[in-house]
Amino acid sequence: MHESSPSILKDEQFMRRALELAAKATGRTSPNPLVGCVIVKDNEIIGEGYHHKAGTPHAEVHALAAAGDQASGATAYVTLEPCSHFGRTPPCADALIRANVKRVVVAMQDPNPLVSGQGTERLREAGIQVDLGVLQHEAERTNEIFLKSITTGLPFIVYKTAMTLDGKIATETGDSRWVSNESSRHYVHQLRDAYDVILVGSETVIQDNPALTCRLPHGKDPVRLIVDGKLRLEEKAQVLTSSKHSPCIIATTLAASSEKVQRLQSLERVEVWQYKTERHVPLEKLLRDLVLRGWISVLLEGGGGLAGTLLQNKLIDKAELFIAPKFVGGTGPSPLSGLHIKAMSEAVTLDNLSFDMHTGDLHVTGYISNFKQ
Amino acid sequence: MHESSPSILKDEQFMRRALELAAKATGRTSPNPLVGCVIVKDNEIIGEGYHHKAGTPHAEVHALAAAGDQASGATAYVTLEPCSHFGRTPPCADALIRANVKRVVVAMQDPNPLVSGQGTERLREAGIQVDLGVLQHEAERTNEIFLKSITTGLPFIVYKTAMTLDGKIATETGDSRWVSNESSRHYVHQLRDAYDVILVGSETVIQDNPALTCRLPHGKDPVRLIVDGKLRLEEKAQVLTSSKHSPCIIATTLAASSEKVQRLQSLERVEVWQYKTERHVPLEKLLRDLVLRGWISVLLEGGGGLAGTLLQNKLIDKAELFIAPKFVGGTGPSPLSGLHIKAMSEAVTLDNLSFDMHTGDLHVTGYISNFKQ
Repeated sequence: MHESSPSILKDEQFMRRALELAAKATGRTSPNPLVGCVIVKDNEIIGEGYHHKAGTPHAEVHALAAAGDQASGATAYVTLEPCSHFGRTPPCADALIRANVKRVVVAMQDPNPLVSGQGTERLREAGIQVDLGVLQHEAERTNEIFLKSITTGLPFIVYKTAMTLDGKIATETGDSRWVSNESSRHYVHQLRDAYDVILVGSETVIQDNPALTCRLPHGKDPVRLIVDGKLRLEEKAQVLTSSKHSPCIIATTLAASSEKVQRLQSLERVEVWQYKTERHVPLEKLLRDLVLRGWISVLLEGGGGLAGTLLQNKLIDKAELFIAPKFVGGTGPSPLSGLHIKAMSEAVTLDNLSFDMHTGDLHVTGYISNFKQ
Repeated sequence: MHESSPSILKDEQFMRRALELAAKATGRTSPNPLVGCVIVKDNEIIGEGYHHKAGTPHAEVHALAAAGDQASGATAYVTLEPCSHFGRTPPCADALIRANVKRVVVAMQDPNPLVSGQGTERLREAGIQVDLGVLQHEAERTNEIFLKSITTGLPFIVYKTAMTLDGKIATETGDSRWVSNESSRHYVHQLRDAYDVILVGSETVIQDNPALTCRLPHGKDPVRLIVDGKLRLEEKAQVLTSSKHSPCIIATTLAASSEKVQRLQSLERVEVWQYKTERHVPLEKLLRDLVLRGWISVLLEGGGGLAGTLLQNKLIDKAELFIAPKFVGGTGPSPLSGLHIKAMSEAVTLDNLSFDMHTGDLHVTGYISNFKQ
């Protein structure tokens, strides 16, 4: 066994703690990454912290503050390369240098072009030992949303749906209450809490009149985004007024009546984004506009037409499927009706599948392989 | 802890071995049950055996033969109550009495009215201690096929299908090669090997022209049964001639041309069962006729119409689903098109779900809850 193995294990142990801390702010830091930091001296944690929210101090600042003077000569574990630029807060690399830490262990480089490599460079120039790549894979997974948006300008999109074991989202008479069980539906509210935006097609709003809010006690309502090329949405739709905190965005086209655009615009927290296209909302443009607004994660809840189109256009990153152990048969609707694959060999495949049954429904998650390197 | 716990554990250990032995003949004993037997003296196995095939010696006979004179004063573990009647072989209860065993441990009573309770009664009358119910649940699962057929006169039916994660058995152009991966398809041949009969609708035969044989090296071809009310099957269909060992049965009605019935009947190993109905084969009657013929397990492989009808009529016991981690979208066919559930709350549910992913596809099995007590 290699001599350094025990110290590698120690490094991974502290980095794991830093990743745990980072994850505490899941869904709260957009457009920033999730970052955790642990300061260690003589194998003891003397300070820890994480980034809570964009515009507030970074993880390193919290951890250094907790460690105080003790930080001198210590090792800092950070889940993402410390920043070297002045953003809304001063550079963390400088804070680590000032605190006189001896060594900095970094899980992964920051892909943000404003940082990438320069944070570690700055630390090394100051004589600090920098070790890169500890639990890199886990760190990348933790920041999959940030990584997608910073490298492509597009949000990370999760497609969520519930269906029966025979692939139906409703019976042939259209009854869909309920496909999945209560515990799965509760989990969906956790997803809503964690994502910046919830996206649905106008048909879903017209059919089901959903609120699309997060019903967890301390949950956060996502921005509600409705793709509605012809502005068919009724003004009394629940989604327009269901949240007291987050905006409702309606993406439409030149096909919308200008009068209706104005009426909807006048509602509190409602924005109409009218694209200069004839019938179809330019989806990629719309998604890029979300990122420009600082919203980098999207939970796509339906319907099948919109989800299929987004999948066909390789805009979906991940799927979260709830499969209820029951059959309804017949000609009821399937998910992904807007996807049109002709040959089975060209099906859109999922990777890194994981599945569990702790809710009683089968819960399957996977990454759409279009996006694999 | 109860004093007898260690001996209960011992009993379970030997019964588990007996169940293992029983399972060795899976798919080979119809219409008989699977039975294993272990003879134990001084905590050592001195003889074991299992029932190999209907008409050949029962498990107890094999195990007693292996134990020889040593059996005197020993304990016998049997997965099913020893028989007390003369069938094709003499009663096993008598054999145990003659061998002078001291105690017989039985996993479950034989539900066969010719045996039920009388086997254990006979043993007790001979002064043998009989303990009933050790690993009863496992024994019932092992003999789920026999139990269904002996108590209802109907075969145990497993519905097997392969679909994509969005519930499609083919793309919208009809392409279905292949939905599941090679390893799942290999497992299907294990199922074919284990079931007496493979059942499909005529549409499946006309569309896919399958052989429906078992392609494992030492596999057994199941009886091929095609439900074909109008006798549309072509005479050159592979299924008619694909097996050199097992019959191909075509179930039809008065709608069939008598000339075609005759032509098909004349083929080797082909039987036409013509029911006196106008258009639809009376499915329950057909299934009862299988049991009368000694075939008690059916693997239902498609299509969606037939499977749906059987499910609607509560004739299916279990489902084996292979779900490939991919999407094809569109309007392609779903499984179970012949099932017509109107309200989601009345969906056919599955119990005792188990699932694994060792083939790369999701493999889900469950019991149709219609049949639960």
